[in-house]
Amino acid sequence: MKITNIPELPLSQKVATEIQGLITSEELKPGEQLPNEFELADRLKVSRSTVREAIKFLAARNVVTIKRGRGTFVSERPGLTEDPLGLDFVTDKKKLSRDLMEVRWIIEPEIAGLAAKNATNEQVEKMELLCLEIEELIKHDENHAEKDIELHSLLAQASGNVVVLNFIPIIEKAISLFIDLTNRSLKMETIISHKEIVGAIKIGDSESAKKAMQRHLIYNKEKLGI
Amino acid sequence: MKITNIPELPLSQKVATEIQGLITSEELKPGEQLPNEFELADRLKVSRSTVREAIKFLAARNVVTIKRGRGTFVSERPGLTEDPLGLDFVTDKKKLSRDLMEVRWIIEPEIAGLAAKNATNEQVEKMELLCLEIEELIKHDENHAEKDIELHSLLAQASGNVVVLNFIPIIEKAISLFIDLTNRSLKMETIISHKEIVGAIKIGDSESAKKAMQRHLIYNKEKLGI
Repeated sequence: MKITNIPELPLSQKVATEIQGLITSEELKPGEQLPNEFELADRLKVSRSTVREAIKFLAARNVVTIKRGRGTFVSERPGLTEDPLGLDFVTDKKKLSRDLMEVRWIIEPEIAGLAAKNATNEQVEKMELLCLEIEELIKHDENHAEKDIELHSLLAQASGNVVVLNFIPIIEKAISLFIDLTNRSLKMETIISHKEIVGAIKIGDSESAKKAMQRHLIYNKEKLGI
Repeated sequence: MKITNIPELPLSQKVATEIQGLITSEELKPGEQLPNEFELADRLKVSRSTVREAIKFLAARNVVTIKRGRGTFVSERPGLTEDPLGLDFVTDKKKLSRDLMEVRWIIEPEIAGLAAKNATNEQVEKMELLCLEIEELIKHDENHAEKDIELHSLLAQASGNVVVLNFIPIIEKAISLFIDLTNRSLKMETIISHKEIVGAIKIGDSESAKKAMQRHLIYNKEKLGI
């Protein structure tokens, strides 16, 4: 059954689903350009204004990026928004931070373990550089949140798991929340435990990488009193 | 700085962020109605057509639901779409299924463990009922995918963790992929291991719940040859 026959959805949304199907079936890669409005309207047998609405829908979901005067392109991380799980709408921020820590405690040591198996030399070098940059920032009492997030995101990338890779916005959200809540007070602990994690990844020691990440998270938990 | 001063975003998107801020700051709950177009335009000092575009943006992200002739309401699970991680865009489906299994292996036993601690009596009763329903469907060689997904979603709900709760669409996607790939051939194993999981949750035995979930997943892994 063609998706345009499902009655409940507005036409533009059905057309959005068809355009999305076209992206996946023709394996358009991030950065690649979509056919223009005329062509899409012609192929999908709908009006240009419906195509325009559908493209806006896909842009809102970050499937495509509209570049004025240049056309429509597949987004860098199609379908992934800054807040994929809608955590901004959880009103009890204290419970949210506790629950995010519970989830980090489950996932991040395993991510470190996978990174120890799968990280490339280039990724390890980048991690070592980030550790040094974070150390400098902390020693000069400057905000290291951005670099900290970059390091944890790189760990997720180095895991080699595409699903874990797409967890990055969630990890980013969690870390910025923690750095706010702990008022950036975990200075020496952060420097040392980051180095332990990256050191274990460098020698491909999965178990030690997991344990080092657990120690890293325990400091955060203690600081938050959870 | 007001979000409307950030230059790169289209105006409607900045207004969308303001409306979203209004939902969170006024703690509008799922199902509650937003102020109408006139009122929003007036409050945010923009045109009604900009408000309309902004509302469409938020509807695409499932933050709000537009009900024709009735108004705009906060969505049931605001900000959460059917495919929050954009997994539909991963072209290598074999790698995706392997990576999803890796993630389920990390997360689902812990979810079962949390459910053993936090499930309400009502949730346990619902789980037991679902086990029976799945057993009946399997014995009559009917498709149990939907009920299977319902059971795993209920486990995530029973974990009591708001972040885990929002993982449900990811778990749903993973399970339907597996049931497709294994061609629904895991009949007896599914019946038995589901009962073991729910039995352990019922008596609040977290460790046994984790182990039972691991056994459940091992059957899937073996079947997939990973």
